Amino acid sequence: MLMQPVPNPSAMEPMRELQERLARTWEELLATSRFVQTVQRGEVTKALYAIYMLETYHYTFHNARNQALVGAQGGLQNRHYQKFCFTHAAEEVGHEQMALHDVLSLGLKGGDFQLPGPLPETETLIAYLYWVSTNGNPVRRLGYSFWAEGCYQYVNPLIQKVRETLRLTPAQLTFFVAHAELDQEHLAEVHELVQKTCVRPEDWAAVGEVMETSLRLTGRMMDAAHDEYLALREQRSSRYAFLARL
Amino acid sequence: MLMQPVPNPSAMEPMRELQERLARTWEELLATSRFVQTVQRGEVTKALYAIYMLETYHYTFHNARNQALVGAQGGLQNRHYQKFCFTHAAEEVGHEQMALHDVLSLGLKGGDFQLPGPLPETETLIAYLYWVSTNGNPVRRLGYSFWAEGCYQYVNPLIQKVRETLRLTPAQLTFFVAHAELDQEHLAEVHELVQKTCVRPEDWAAVGEVMETSLRLTGRMMDAAHDEYLALREQRSSRYAFLARL
Amino acid sequence: MLMQPVPNPSAMEPMRELQERLARTWEELLATSRFVQTVQRGEVTKALYAIYMLETYHYTFHNARNQALVGAQGGLQNRHYQKFCFTHAAEEVGHEQMALHDVLSLGLKGGDFQLPGPLPETETLIAYLYWVSTNGNPVRRLGYSFWAEGCYQYVNPLIQKVRETLRLTPAQLTFFVAHAELDQEHLAEVHELVQKTCVRPEDWAAVGEVMETSLRLTGRMMDAAHDEYLALREQRSSRYAFLARL
Amino acid sequence: MLMQPVPNPSAMEPMRELQERLARTWEELLATSRFVQTVQRGEVTKALYAIYMLETYHYTFHNARNQALVGAQGGLQNRHYQKFCFTHAAEEVGHEQMALHDVLSLGLKGGDFQLPGPLPETETLIAYLYWVSTNGNPVRRLGYSFWAEGCYQYVNPLIQKVRETLRLTPAQLTFFVAHAELDQEHLAEVHELVQKTCVRPEDWAAVGEVMETSLRLTGRMMDAAHDEYLALREQRSSRYAFLARL
Repeated sequence: MLMQPVPNPSAMEPMRELQERLARTWEELLATSRFVQTVQRGEVTKALYAIYMLETYHYTFHNARNQALVGAQGGLQNRHYQKFCFTHAAEEVGHEQMALHDVLSLGLKGGDFQLPGPLPETETLIAYLYWVSTNGNPVRRLGYSFWAEGCYQYVNPLIQKVRETLRLTPAQLTFFVAHAELDQEHLAEVHELVQKTCVRPEDWAAVGEVMETSLRLTGRMMDAAHDEYLALREQRSSRYAFLARL
Repeated sequence: MLMQPVPNPSAMEPMRELQERLARTWEELLATSRFVQTVQRGEVTKALYAIYMLETYHYTFHNARNQALVGAQGGLQNRHYQKFCFTHAAEEVGHEQMALHDVLSLGLKGGDFQLPGPLPETETLIAYLYWVSTNGNPVRRLGYSFWAEGCYQYVNPLIQKVRETLRLTPAQLTFFVAHAELDQEHLAEVHELVQKTCVRPEDWAAVGEVMETSLRLTGRMMDAAHDEYLALREQRSSRYAFLARL
Repeated sequence: MLMQPVPNPSAMEPMRELQERLARTWEELLATSRFVQTVQRGEVTKALYAIYMLETYHYTFHNARNQALVGAQGGLQNRHYQKFCFTHAAEEVGHEQMALHDVLSLGLKGGDFQLPGPLPETETLIAYLYWVSTNGNPVRRLGYSFWAEGCYQYVNPLIQKVRETLRLTPAQLTFFVAHAELDQEHLAEVHELVQKTCVRPEDWAAVGEVMETSLRLTGRMMDAAHDEYLALREQRSSRYAFLARL
Repeated sequence: MLMQPVPNPSAMEPMRELQERLARTWEELLATSRFVQTVQRGEVTKALYAIYMLETYHYTFHNARNQALVGAQGGLQNRHYQKFCFTHAAEEVGHEQMALHDVLSLGLKGGDFQLPGPLPETETLIAYLYWVSTNGNPVRRLGYSFWAEGCYQYVNPLIQKVRETLRLTPAQLTFFVAHAELDQEHLAEVHELVQKTCVRPEDWAAVGEVMETSLRLTGRMMDAAHDEYLALREQRSSRYAFLARL
């Protein structure tokens, strides 16, 4: 039902601007991220990848929840959007388990370690997504979906590089493989929904701001994972000490 | 996926007790409710029915929302139940519009009146459902679904009576017709889920308590609608004055 | 600062109506409450009083919390009222401990029992107060303070009767003694604040509705305590079995 | 009552570590902040200062609110800390108005402009403080108070520099003057409270993490204000266009 193409000529220009802003933000992130550069140089290790995936576990744990909170807002009027929020939340349930599975597949056992809490940068991302999902223009959380569902064109080369460097099988990459498939479908839905729900210029501005901010905060999380890895290697931090055995 | 029969022998006895408790609560409600008795005597009027349906509009507006909040709880562990919460919330979106449609079909126009806020008894029911959905044992909100999805065996005779008394067509009863159909399906799902998620005696007790309490509060709402109707007829209240024209 | 008399002539009439509505609601409650009648007949027992006080413990535990939530609302504009909410919340902190102390003074020890959760009627009151504190007109929670802080003219005879029947010393009545003193002061503050914050007729209506509804829900809690006591005596309920030793 | 010195020898070492961590974080912030350097060079303008103060207005608007939410948490056990939360929230009410007053004193009139929403970095700080105030170890929000109440030793030279550069009178610096006084008193209270409420190593760790993270996010907000000022000057942004007249 959500899949019909929507001819909404007035949305074309703001949609193009949104995609350009996204491209610029990715470009900057990819060019400056310490994590990305380490991956691109083929220097990713199991421990670094595991830290990144455990931080991913943390924020993914909250994605279905904060997505549902958008639809639970008392002031939300758009029932089509409300239904999307709940349907989409249902689809996101348990995805954090895939991230956890992929980490364990590197050679850890669930009972061997106590999962540490999220890094401050991860918690900042989580906090921001809850805030955006429960305050302000309800349409704006679509800015997060807009980049998250369509990130594969940007991150696929990185995933391939990780895969080669660490010689991972597809069965060890369930999080990315599953999302790449699901998100193909979701992306069209999100694009259509953005065009339907963004009616006023301030709607587009709100979506654009959340898109850029949540992507930047994700970039910060990546670099925090990278810095935590360096701290682990240099024995300045014991948060992820159990990964030393990898 | 949710539809397979679950052979859970240990759930049989608490399930039977739950249904007996439900039957007793309904019996008491049907025997003592002023609203029910007025309907049974064939004395329902369009104004009384409209008041009841507008209060129904109010609490139904919140049902998808508080259902989703159960799944958004940070402490919820059961992902199967979490998924149900969001899927079920998606299905409930906009059902309040059917209640509103049915009231308008009696001969009102949307722009003709300002919908008054919920009666205190309706607001108490709404408040209780939000509280139950965000505090305490997360499984307990199933107690509300347990009776709400399976209420038709109890309320169908009343709906038929209203239909005859007011000579309503099926197109004027969309709220009840749609729910009777949907809930047939949902009921099996809820029964199965209760059996799967209630593991400890305190889970069954929590579901039972919310079942009985939310049904009693709904009974109070019905009688409050009835009393408001008497107050309207006797010109002691102007809250629903716009219904005088019906 | 809050204590100066406020000459607000336009508040006089709605203030008088509020107090008359309060008097009528109390009159009805006192005339119909099973709990009140048992107390008046001098038939209160330690177990009945203990059940009532433990339910009081439960809702009092939440009073400072939901009072503070009014002031935390993003949309609250009135900074004078906001300050009152936080100051008043600070004063209410820990009052539930007095209720617990008074119960223990009857001859129980803290470690001897596991405090059961609130009765459904108590939880309904708690739920309603949270809802009112976080939704709708923020001024309306003053309706609860309006009767709660000024209840001593109505409940003092009952407290005296309990005291005589159970031969309690003042040291066993800390909850009521402390509140009677505190509330003397608070009542003037609440009266003044109601007159200052109720500007439009709908403000007065909202305060009046919450006043009446929360007092009625408290009456229901009292009778639920009474019914639970009968169930305990007749061994139909074991929730409060540990009180049998009193 | 909160003011007595607390001899808690076991708190001395973690307290010292907390203060050293704070000093290191400030040192890094002061050394790298574009905003700070512009101020130190005597290059602050009214427009830059106004942007900074309006962003300060935004997060300060939420401080009393999220402080109160800590005390409203259902799981909070420490009643001394709960009382502090509400008392402190009461004292913070309306402080955002001082920030607004100081901006207006630069030569703006309230009706002349529409206050833009917070910059993304400001909203991220706000989001983080709400998250910390409602999730995780309740004691950890003290990490924010720990640096915020004691920031004057670090920021006073900056305030003096702004004052000289813009030739501001004390009446134009109400926000900083009032806080410097209030916070003198609060700081001792917060120090004592941290020592009393931090019992386990993880309490100290949680306070330390929130202290550092919230201070870093505040640093990001400062630089975002600075960048927005550059964008205004170079006419790349119109968010704060009304400040061009200053």
